[in-house]
Amino acid sequence: MDKPLKYAVFGAGSWATAIVKMLSENLNEIGWYMRSVYTKEHLLREQHNPNYLSSVEFHLEQLKLSNDINEIAQYADVLIFVIPSAFIHSELEKLTVDISNKTIVSAVKGIMPETGLLVGEHFHKTYKIPYDNIAVIAGPCHAEEVALERLSYLTISCSNTAKAEAIANTLSSDYIKTKTSDDVIGIEYAVMLKNIYAIAAGIAHGLGYGDNFQSVLMSNAIREMKRFIKKRHKMKRNINNSAYLGDLLVTGYSVFSRNRMFGNMIGKGYTVKSAQMEMSMVAEGYYATKSAHTLNDKNVKKTQTPIINAVYEILYDNKNPKKVFKKLTDKLD
Amino acid sequence: MDKPLKYAVFGAGSWATAIVKMLSENLNEIGWYMRSVYTKEHLLREQHNPNYLSSVEFHLEQLKLSNDINEIAQYADVLIFVIPSAFIHSELEKLTVDISNKTIVSAVKGIMPETGLLVGEHFHKTYKIPYDNIAVIAGPCHAEEVALERLSYLTISCSNTAKAEAIANTLSSDYIKTKTSDDVIGIEYAVMLKNIYAIAAGIAHGLGYGDNFQSVLMSNAIREMKRFIKKRHKMKRNINNSAYLGDLLVTGYSVFSRNRMFGNMIGKGYTVKSAQMEMSMVAEGYYATKSAHTLNDKNVKKTQTPIINAVYEILYDNKNPKKVFKKLTDKLD
Repeated sequence: MDKPLKYAVFGAGSWATAIVKMLSENLNEIGWYMRSVYTKEHLLREQHNPNYLSSVEFHLEQLKLSNDINEIAQYADVLIFVIPSAFIHSELEKLTVDISNKTIVSAVKGIMPETGLLVGEHFHKTYKIPYDNIAVIAGPCHAEEVALERLSYLTISCSNTAKAEAIANTLSSDYIKTKTSDDVIGIEYAVMLKNIYAIAAGIAHGLGYGDNFQSVLMSNAIREMKRFIKKRHKMKRNINNSAYLGDLLVTGYSVFSRNRMFGNMIGKGYTVKSAQMEMSMVAEGYYATKSAHTLNDKNVKKTQTPIINAVYEILYDNKNPKKVFKKLTDKLD
Repeated sequence: MDKPLKYAVFGAGSWATAIVKMLSENLNEIGWYMRSVYTKEHLLREQHNPNYLSSVEFHLEQLKLSNDINEIAQYADVLIFVIPSAFIHSELEKLTVDISNKTIVSAVKGIMPETGLLVGEHFHKTYKIPYDNIAVIAGPCHAEEVALERLSYLTISCSNTAKAEAIANTLSSDYIKTKTSDDVIGIEYAVMLKNIYAIAAGIAHGLGYGDNFQSVLMSNAIREMKRFIKKRHKMKRNINNSAYLGDLLVTGYSVFSRNRMFGNMIGKGYTVKSAQMEMSMVAEGYYATKSAHTLNDKNVKKTQTPIINAVYEILYDNKNPKKVFKKLTDKLD
């Protein structure tokens, strides 16, 4: 039999921590890179992440912790990146070891602002990694519920089906069910777009719109998402599968989603700056809004995206949320 | 110009009351039939429905109230039925006036248990009303938010487009936006099915499943709904439109939905009987579950409906909710 593959997680936020927990159900050792020396020291001392999912207790003998990205990149065969899209570029600049023969898994939720590329595209372009060695992990999955071992479903996407299945099996457990897909690009876009729609849901809530409107917003959002993704990467996909619609719903309906929370503050009258200052976690959708808007705007593959446009006008053109949403309501149905 | 059409609402529950409110924004007079003498007396005295949406104050000069279904049926050109599916058959048995030349609008959420027919089908068969004169009102729309005048969207469906538009215009206002459709049958099924899925969502919640699972359940529910409706009435429809997906979401995610509440009690261990006794309002989904299951079971147009089957087993075969849902989780993805 082949030597078992070594897995490593890059990042120490809540989603990264949840993924390490999932892997720890199946693997004897997991590499775990984190930037913060304090987090590593705390983990070694207290067996839990000080900042996220701190109820999850790890067994130290299963963890190979390091603050050196190259050490962990060198160690592992399968590299799972779970770093916010706004920071991944600067983290990757530290990489000096050759990763061209590794399997790259993205659990990053967005486009890299510096390049306008999906994370998978970035690894393909910059590190010459073939698409067969690039995978994506998608929810619907709040990290907080993984900590509670509440039943959750993941979709692992890779153009190489055997690879997708191997990763899926490594993440499966009593409380994690997995399925595979070959729509890497579509799922990367879906994961990014849902955060924009969660901001929209939050803005609507902050402005006083109710549940009836929220359901209309989500119904329009999934149709907008379908159009957007189809323009960028046409293939047969069921947009109502869990990785697309399910992930949109878990984010758009959750009062815990930081994107929805961020939108809610904007709807309630906070400026973008003050809302960002109030929140210690990054609202990925803020960056995603700009990326998606730019992609759709500059490109010949343009489609109707009234919701993305409305969020963009509020976040980047400083338009009045109330007025923008009043206009948006006429475009929804 | 033609004489303006007279509208009447039959029923005095929360949804009926909300529809009278919507009509009262546009019409000088609305016929309103209610069975309860007490409700009528209270309305005349206090200008509001004593039992539902009691914050909504009506102008009595706009209302032609009656406890005589024939008086109101005689009076109106457009008859809007908003009576629970379990009671409509016995109410209609009181009808002696000829309604064959009237326009019938169903805002009933389900199949008539006695006949297994959709409400539209029943009127067509029993009263010889042509399908061009039969319409359906669908949400997503909680009556409670209509009372608060929170922006809501309705879909009015009729094979006669002009008729659908006329009804839609009569319901539109500052806080009600409308669209039309010609998928009367599909929307009638959707309205019925969503209540079953809301019960499923409630059961899951009662059993302790979290938001991640709920989103997977809804993602599977909309796919199941699409299959079910397609088998019964094949036509081009976008299942993600508000009348289908939106209505599913507003019901499945609302803690105020009586169907979800009913399911939640079942999940928490109440028997069907005790849950029904605790609730003063009818959970339409209870009857819908049997109707949908029977339709799918006896029919050659059978499709995979794991969620409906699971709810049916719990409600009608007295199976253990925990075990049934454990099995269901393996069928979802």
